[in-house]
Amino acid sequence: MHTMYKKLLQLPLFQGLNQADITEIIEKVKLHFQTIPANTPIIEQEENCTKLFFLLEGSLTKVTNSKDQVFRIEQSVSAPCLLEPQSLFGLAPTYQASYSTISECDIMTIEKSYVLSELMNYPIFELNYLNILSRNTHSLYNLIWENKYTNELSDRFKYFIKSHVDNVDQPITLYITMEDLAFQLNDTRLNVSKMLNELKDRNMISLKRKIIHIPSFHTLK
Amino acid sequence: MHTMYKKLLQLPLFQGLNQADITEIIEKVKLHFQTIPANTPIIEQEENCTKLFFLLEGSLTKVTNSKDQVFRIEQSVSAPCLLEPQSLFGLAPTYQASYSTISECDIMTIEKSYVLSELMNYPIFELNYLNILSRNTHSLYNLIWENKYTNELSDRFKYFIKSHVDNVDQPITLYITMEDLAFQLNDTRLNVSKMLNELKDRNMISLKRKIIHIPSFHTLK
Repeated sequence: MHTMYKKLLQLPLFQGLNQADITEIIEKVKLHFQTIPANTPIIEQEENCTKLFFLLEGSLTKVTNSKDQVFRIEQSVSAPCLLEPQSLFGLAPTYQASYSTISECDIMTIEKSYVLSELMNYPIFELNYLNILSRNTHSLYNLIWENKYTNELSDRFKYFIKSHVDNVDQPITLYITMEDLAFQLNDTRLNVSKMLNELKDRNMISLKRKIIHIPSFHTLK
Repeated sequence: MHTMYKKLLQLPLFQGLNQADITEIIEKVKLHFQTIPANTPIIEQEENCTKLFFLLEGSLTKVTNSKDQVFRIEQSVSAPCLLEPQSLFGLAPTYQASYSTISECDIMTIEKSYVLSELMNYPIFELNYLNILSRNTHSLYNLIWENKYTNELSDRFKYFIKSHVDNVDQPITLYITMEDLAFQLNDTRLNVSKMLNELKDRNMISLKRKIIHIPSFHTLK
């Protein structure tokens, strides 16, 4: 019980709850635990989201495909974390990305019905949820209204990456053809190729056919 | 009381509550009413948001300045509506835009403390709030990941507008110099001027010095 208490407290929605609350929650709410072997797909992009999904141990690959399937972005996600709290509500409660296990993973899920009937009765849980959702909209909003100092192609590339990932602190892999990236950045294939090769020569990215890997977003210049 | 009941039911967060709940809410929660004369500023962009702000009667001008103050967008907002539910929570609970009255306006405000201590106890109110916030993040997210069929300058202009307003069903006024718009759209001043004048000749926009007025976003081609 003590371990479970510590584990739950690390999760975004449970932060700030006291041990008595957590004990009560464990009694009332059906927490569903699973251990999943490595290299197993667990969530498909666009699949209905009907439960809160927590990663307790291990790491996942997150893959997001553009709506037109022209490019995709891959990042890893490490425990402890909550996947897509925003996808449980709204008009279209579906997942925004696909996830599969990298290592063996421990996960915990909680049905939406328990979230509404029990968890939301804890003011701290409820406030955590409202804060997370609001923070999500603020960061997307700021991204759209943020300052734009130059129109350098490499800056447009950086902005393109930044606007399509939610964690710039993890390595990023972009799958796209040079032509399609040129289209996204509104420039020529030749200029895009030149820009990418310069970044590669400065060891900021690595390039393979249709694959751009960015080990650290923050060192991109 | 009956009128108040009907009025509250029109507001996004109260939709679906029954008369008994509304009666209880009116007894328990301090609803603060005000009538504000025409042409009065009421909210400043970046001001702290400490209460829910409902427009019950009348209409407001909403002005959003870009972070670098280089451009601004103006739209009107009509009753009944709730202003920026996402600005009450999160790390930076501040307003995203400035508002002033166009006509005489009836407004109702509710302190955040009442929202948390009372209103959130009504499961319908709570679910409405979670759905509104989630919908907000979904629409910003979809905007970023949406299909991109052409790189025509006029399409980039449309996308620029769409990504900076939250209501494409209301007329839009953009204050920006031709140079700054060219910078935003990553094109030349000459091309932008030509594109805008074509739209003007087709009666889709009107142009004044530093002002672009779009009566109907949907007719922009």
